Amino acid sequence: MTESFADLDHDRRRRTGVPEVVLGEGKTTEQTLALLAGLRAGDPSGPALATRCPDGVLAAAPGAFPGEAVTIDEHGRTVVVGDLPAPAGRTVVLTAGTADLPVARECTTTLAVLGIAADLVPDVGVAGLHRLLGRLDRLRDAHAVVVVAGMDGALPSVVAGLVAAPVVGVPTSTGYGVAAGGLAAAGAMLATCSPGLVVVNVDNGFGAAVHAARIEGLVAGG
Amino acid sequence: MTESFADLDHDRRRRTGVPEVVLGEGKTTEQTLALLAGLRAGDPSGPALATRCPDGVLAAAPGAFPGEAVTIDEHGRTVVVGDLPAPAGRTVVLTAGTADLPVARECTTTLAVLGIAADLVPDVGVAGLHRLLGRLDRLRDAHAVVVVAGMDGALPSVVAGLVAAPVVGVPTSTGYGVAAGGLAAAGAMLATCSPGLVVVNVDNGFGAAVHAARIEGLVAGG
Amino acid sequence: MTESFADLDHDRRRRTGVPEVVLGEGKTTEQTLALLAGLRAGDPSGPALATRCPDGVLAAAPGAFPGEAVTIDEHGRTVVVGDLPAPAGRTVVLTAGTADLPVARECTTTLAVLGIAADLVPDVGVAGLHRLLGRLDRLRDAHAVVVVAGMDGALPSVVAGLVAAPVVGVPTSTGYGVAAGGLAAAGAMLATCSPGLVVVNVDNGFGAAVHAARIEGLVAGG
Amino acid sequence: MTESFADLDHDRRRRTGVPEVVLGEGKTTEQTLALLAGLRAGDPSGPALATRCPDGVLAAAPGAFPGEAVTIDEHGRTVVVGDLPAPAGRTVVLTAGTADLPVARECTTTLAVLGIAADLVPDVGVAGLHRLLGRLDRLRDAHAVVVVAGMDGALPSVVAGLVAAPVVGVPTSTGYGVAAGGLAAAGAMLATCSPGLVVVNVDNGFGAAVHAARIEGLVAGG
Amino acid sequence: MTESFADLDHDRRRRTGVPEVVLGEGKTTEQTLALLAGLRAGDPSGPALATRCPDGVLAAAPGAFPGEAVTIDEHGRTVVVGDLPAPAGRTVVLTAGTADLPVARECTTTLAVLGIAADLVPDVGVAGLHRLLGRLDRLRDAHAVVVVAGMDGALPSVVAGLVAAPVVGVPTSTGYGVAAGGLAAAGAMLATCSPGLVVVNVDNGFGAAVHAARIEGLVAGG
Amino acid sequence: MTESFADLDHDRRRRTGVPEVVLGEGKTTEQTLALLAGLRAGDPSGPALATRCPDGVLAAAPGAFPGEAVTIDEHGRTVVVGDLPAPAGRTVVLTAGTADLPVARECTTTLAVLGIAADLVPDVGVAGLHRLLGRLDRLRDAHAVVVVAGMDGALPSVVAGLVAAPVVGVPTSTGYGVAAGGLAAAGAMLATCSPGLVVVNVDNGFGAAVHAARIEGLVAGG
Amino acid sequence: MTESFADLDHDRRRRTGVPEVVLGEGKTTEQTLALLAGLRAGDPSGPALATRCPDGVLAAAPGAFPGEAVTIDEHGRTVVVGDLPAPAGRTVVLTAGTADLPVARECTTTLAVLGIAADLVPDVGVAGLHRLLGRLDRLRDAHAVVVVAGMDGALPSVVAGLVAAPVVGVPTSTGYGVAAGGLAAAGAMLATCSPGLVVVNVDNGFGAAVHAARIEGLVAGG
Amino acid sequence: MTESFADLDHDRRRRTGVPEVVLGEGKTTEQTLALLAGLRAGDPSGPALATRCPDGVLAAAPGAFPGEAVTIDEHGRTVVVGDLPAPAGRTVVLTAGTADLPVARECTTTLAVLGIAADLVPDVGVAGLHRLLGRLDRLRDAHAVVVVAGMDGALPSVVAGLVAAPVVGVPTSTGYGVAAGGLAAAGAMLATCSPGLVVVNVDNGFGAAVHAARIEGLVAGG
Repeated sequence: MTESFADLDHDRRRRTGVPEVVLGEGKTTEQTLALLAGLRAGDPSGPALATRCPDGVLAAAPGAFPGEAVTIDEHGRTVVVGDLPAPAGRTVVLTAGTADLPVARECTTTLAVLGIAADLVPDVGVAGLHRLLGRLDRLRDAHAVVVVAGMDGALPSVVAGLVAAPVVGVPTSTGYGVAAGGLAAAGAMLATCSPGLVVVNVDNGFGAAVHAARIEGLVAGG
Repeated sequence: MTESFADLDHDRRRRTGVPEVVLGEGKTTEQTLALLAGLRAGDPSGPALATRCPDGVLAAAPGAFPGEAVTIDEHGRTVVVGDLPAPAGRTVVLTAGTADLPVARECTTTLAVLGIAADLVPDVGVAGLHRLLGRLDRLRDAHAVVVVAGMDGALPSVVAGLVAAPVVGVPTSTGYGVAAGGLAAAGAMLATCSPGLVVVNVDNGFGAAVHAARIEGLVAGG
Repeated sequence: MTESFADLDHDRRRRTGVPEVVLGEGKTTEQTLALLAGLRAGDPSGPALATRCPDGVLAAAPGAFPGEAVTIDEHGRTVVVGDLPAPAGRTVVLTAGTADLPVARECTTTLAVLGIAADLVPDVGVAGLHRLLGRLDRLRDAHAVVVVAGMDGALPSVVAGLVAAPVVGVPTSTGYGVAAGGLAAAGAMLATCSPGLVVVNVDNGFGAAVHAARIEGLVAGG
Repeated sequence: MTESFADLDHDRRRRTGVPEVVLGEGKTTEQTLALLAGLRAGDPSGPALATRCPDGVLAAAPGAFPGEAVTIDEHGRTVVVGDLPAPAGRTVVLTAGTADLPVARECTTTLAVLGIAADLVPDVGVAGLHRLLGRLDRLRDAHAVVVVAGMDGALPSVVAGLVAAPVVGVPTSTGYGVAAGGLAAAGAMLATCSPGLVVVNVDNGFGAAVHAARIEGLVAGG
Repeated sequence: MTESFADLDHDRRRRTGVPEVVLGEGKTTEQTLALLAGLRAGDPSGPALATRCPDGVLAAAPGAFPGEAVTIDEHGRTVVVGDLPAPAGRTVVLTAGTADLPVARECTTTLAVLGIAADLVPDVGVAGLHRLLGRLDRLRDAHAVVVVAGMDGALPSVVAGLVAAPVVGVPTSTGYGVAAGGLAAAGAMLATCSPGLVVVNVDNGFGAAVHAARIEGLVAGG
Repeated sequence: MTESFADLDHDRRRRTGVPEVVLGEGKTTEQTLALLAGLRAGDPSGPALATRCPDGVLAAAPGAFPGEAVTIDEHGRTVVVGDLPAPAGRTVVLTAGTADLPVARECTTTLAVLGIAADLVPDVGVAGLHRLLGRLDRLRDAHAVVVVAGMDGALPSVVAGLVAAPVVGVPTSTGYGVAAGGLAAAGAMLATCSPGLVVVNVDNGFGAAVHAARIEGLVAGG
Repeated sequence: MTESFADLDHDRRRRTGVPEVVLGEGKTTEQTLALLAGLRAGDPSGPALATRCPDGVLAAAPGAFPGEAVTIDEHGRTVVVGDLPAPAGRTVVLTAGTADLPVARECTTTLAVLGIAADLVPDVGVAGLHRLLGRLDRLRDAHAVVVVAGMDGALPSVVAGLVAAPVVGVPTSTGYGVAAGGLAAAGAMLATCSPGLVVVNVDNGFGAAVHAARIEGLVAGG
Repeated sequence: MTESFADLDHDRRRRTGVPEVVLGEGKTTEQTLALLAGLRAGDPSGPALATRCPDGVLAAAPGAFPGEAVTIDEHGRTVVVGDLPAPAGRTVVLTAGTADLPVARECTTTLAVLGIAADLVPDVGVAGLHRLLGRLDRLRDAHAVVVVAGMDGALPSVVAGLVAAPVVGVPTSTGYGVAAGGLAAAGAMLATCSPGLVVVNVDNGFGAAVHAARIEGLVAGG
């Protein structure tokens, strides 16, 4: 029973195309597992997802859903209950550095849960620009491009000047000093000189994935 | 001749689907008019646009391009040189209040320059929620929804929970005290509890329009 | 003896209607327990309360007051020594999400200590607006409404546009990135477009309860 | 006709007890006057109010509503169209200094429009505490106390420790250096050590008045 | 030997009246103990002091200086090596709350090391003003008054309006939400409406003590 | 008559040694002149002072007090009504640069009004350290040293390491970029590595003077 | 005579290789002209320079130095008194956009005054990367590269990854919203992922020039 | 194999003179060790370096590269794999205090890896200026000076006024209160009144070393 602490929004997939997802942070392990069970029961047409899961959830989840496929990503801190749908679409997820990978994996897992095919390209930051320029063909073919970057947050601005697809910047908390917490990266992305770049919250790979999925839904005729 | 102070990017439309646009702010009137002329000459297939134009540009522009259609929007502070293309697509632009209109008009003018049909719905902020709820049909039909809001920046989060289209929040500098400058609205939009909301810089109606146009381009099969 | 580190304000209930309460944070366990004992001894007409108690206080309190009723809330981090008064009044406490519950419980416990009847409604955030709209009757009947919300802090603005009762927003530190620490939520609430919304410090469920109790005191003819 | 730029909320008085009010800032003079006329026509049961009016509105308003009583406050920057209702209730408005008076007058004008009797006590800041202590009787009798203070924002915390009525702090942008813009005062009020103090946006005398009016409405049995 | 990591300033007492003191934070235990030994050896005329000592230093110090008096204050996190001088002067140290005591003790220990007589008065915050007003005689007799306060930082402004002695405000990191880290208190003290109040860094009881000692040195004819 | 907008604190000189002073900013010219007249009438034993006076006050003051000596400082923005007392004491006021002079003059004028002899030494910033080192004798003789500095705010830390007198740092809003508004200088002064440096608000030459006067009062046996 | 407000540092060129320069901002026109005259008289071996000059200085300077060559740059806001030395060295100054040109011109004028040959390349921001990539040969030949950029501040990070010369980033206040004031650009540059990039204050083209001149001095064997 | 999480930039030494370096923070131990191995294998001409290594990397590194010289610095948190090149050049690294040493050691280790001779001078902060003034000869002989300072960040401004070499300031997170995190020091360095001072990110001893190495490369005729 979740009713004393939550009010699940089983109607969200109908309204917005995307089901409710559990934010694991700030909840007890019991609450998160109960919410995952509630979402899975309320909408059997797709898997249930929890993001930003603390260690306790990652440890308890595999044994908590007997008879279900449970997929844990310790780096991306996600739990998926139920089988993934067949993927479709063409979204590309770039990272500026290796340390941005956990956020990128939250993004690609969310895309997979939503049935979107994602292509993950790590470590193509602007300190070595040839790594990006060598992959332009993959980028130009995409329906949506998600660019995950911490520190200076420069990569999304460069990408948005090179491709015609919608580009979403995800600032990350990677870095130290003025970069710590991701506000420098977020500020740089919002202040971009490249028209059309949009931004989500720091470390919010999930939100970028949902935006990409809304775009993919339009392309698919949704 | 602009070469001593600028290096026009005539290739940008080919790469990104959107031609270069002049940011009027921080330039002299002479520079802005020369850049508009350069863009218009370099790419006669569509009109040239300048945004955030100071009074001097708005006053001088009508007489500066003989033989051209010149459209001035004093509230939105835009100058368009050349005829607008025929509009296509279905983008909706909402504002929370009347004071957000100049930013919304920068957005709709940019959309018009890019050939996107835009539907402007002003003054539907969350203090009187029935105004928004009475327009849900128009929103649910859109390819992209741009929500322009200052002060608390709450409206985009509400909208993103009600529709399946991609939603772009534009924080505005409307308001005073902690709202002045738009950082409270921007923070609220980035921190949204509504999955999939993306954000552009404060008062950046132009950037939101370009993102919407990239989405419309995909839908149109671009 | 508390005199070497504190100077209890036994007169506060007379002046302000609300007795002094111990803030557990930043004190040693010994100090907090001694202050609770001092408050309880100095004003036997009602229970003594400590908020934001560290683990050490929560563990030690049950055994520290022999012959007294001691109530511990591990989530809300409160300790109550003494029996609660009979509740009266009509205050409603809403939360935007499950993660806001600890702050809401600090609020409802404080209300209970002050003899106010509180109705707790969790998880009605703006991403799924129908959850709030379905409860308007309960809200419209209230003397005071406390709205606890982190992340975008949008819910209090929506509520203040729907009801005539005084509404207090409590921003919470729930969330990450720009939401971490609750300043985005606090900024959004202060910048509200809904007239009459007032705000307390981040995570200050206690302060919101005292304000509501002052209002209830007026209604009761205090 | 306001429909192209606004969507008046004539239902707001029914829902919240307080009619819609025009924020003059960020609008053209024409827009503000049209909105005042629309509000006045839509709800003849009380006067229409505009706050934070630029000079153009203050100059044009007296001649814009033939046959109506029009009251201008140049310091408080308000325009009232229509006769004030008879006052009732007992709200006290304090200021810490003379420079806080414009905000206090926005507050007392709003209270007058809403039919609340207000008692204005200026210049009782904490640098000379005896000025406040000499007026405690007037304060202890109030239904609501609004405390307007810039600079250190200390006065509301002192007041909230002395009276039982609900206390609302209004930080002002009075001051310079770290006080400029009012964020130091707002931070101090939110961080108060005095339980129950609530806060509105910097310079928001209007919002404090509406909260006080909601409280007065309860006391009056509304 | 400290020469590879430090360069002790044995001349500082001659120049400034106050010997060098070790800041324990950010150093290894070995470094702090070696610096204490070096200071003690270089200036046997008075005790050596270390402030903000981590647990390792507090644990190791008692056994590290054979033949010396070593005084540890676990709450104030100070270590004193050597006998205290006889106290003279009249400095008063106030705290707003119990949680401000560790900072106040850093201050009184520093004063004791510098030979200043200090009178510590805890927990007289503005939420219960009578506690302060009852002690005015002690305050009015002082050569210097140090006021230690977190949260709203209001107490120093009140004190500076009541006495003629120089008043130093010490903001503390006591509190949560906008008070966390002490910036709200520091801002309020800097923005004070009470002329003559001066401020030191957050939690810097040491610095306030040195300023008071410089004043006491003048009074003593130094 | 000032009673409708102010409540003069004629008792302040008795309590704190320093009479009330008018802050010209944020008041109308009429209010400031009336307050000056009120202060002058209420305490004829010394001159009345207004600081941070707008142009209107500086222009009107010479003609507003017939029969009185009126001294205007256009750079320091002060008005003094009445004759200055004979100076005593030894306070030194340093500036880092020429642009800090207006704040330093507010300080020296205040000192003069309070009867303190002040020695002004301009333009001895740390970029050319020999200018300071050549004046150490004047500094070492002082009862109090006020150091006025913008930009990096480094000078007060250097001075506090060289002299034994109490040192007050006054950050100024001189500078641009991260220095604009004076917060970088204020932060550097609060974070000083030089024990005993105390700080006042940005541009608050007045407050530093009052603190110095309190110290001089002690030395004089006050 | 400047002695009452300044203390010229005629020794600076000997110590640091660069003579003192007048910062025009925050000084009166008379002060700036007197300082220019003093510097010119004290060091006839090179021209005297004033930066950030208000309009009054730019207007008065041409007539203020009879018999001297006076060069005014209205966009860069500089005044040079005396003939420029013959240029040597190889420093390149890039700008991201046209609006960054005033800061770049302050930089190139300073370099010219110091005898350094500078190559100015405007408008090569990352939104159109080919503009930069087409100029790599000029960059790779440089002794020092100064990159002037506002908004996202991304260009210096890209440049520092492409060349071996020392690279200095100059953030500018170009832009609006989160870019206004240049803090987003400054943050991005400090947080760079490109090793070796160093940063100066926002809009500080002068400081970047001096750093480049120090490097050129080394290369020239200084 | 690193290809799934990284894309090593083996070309970086050719382009920029400095090989790629591993930032240990934010990566798993396995990732960091694999990247070190990959860098070492890809460029055997010099050692591979990892900075900001967590404890796990420092513990595992000595056993992870059989047959290689592995040098660990637990304070500076660096790992070097391979023999250091013979040092050349003249770079001086100063620290303001002992607590700044870890950052200074990251700097000197990086310089050693890049073949630059570095002279480390600790603890010469401005509170005791004679320590710096006694070492001017060593400073004046340098090709580059790196100044590492936390708290007030004043030392680099003083140094840049005394020498002609290029000076790089490294703010550190040393300190507490407003100094915590290093932003006060960074602000002071950027706002410097000493022409030519350049700044890197807080605690970025590595970046300062790379900039110094680029300068040394020029001097050496690179």
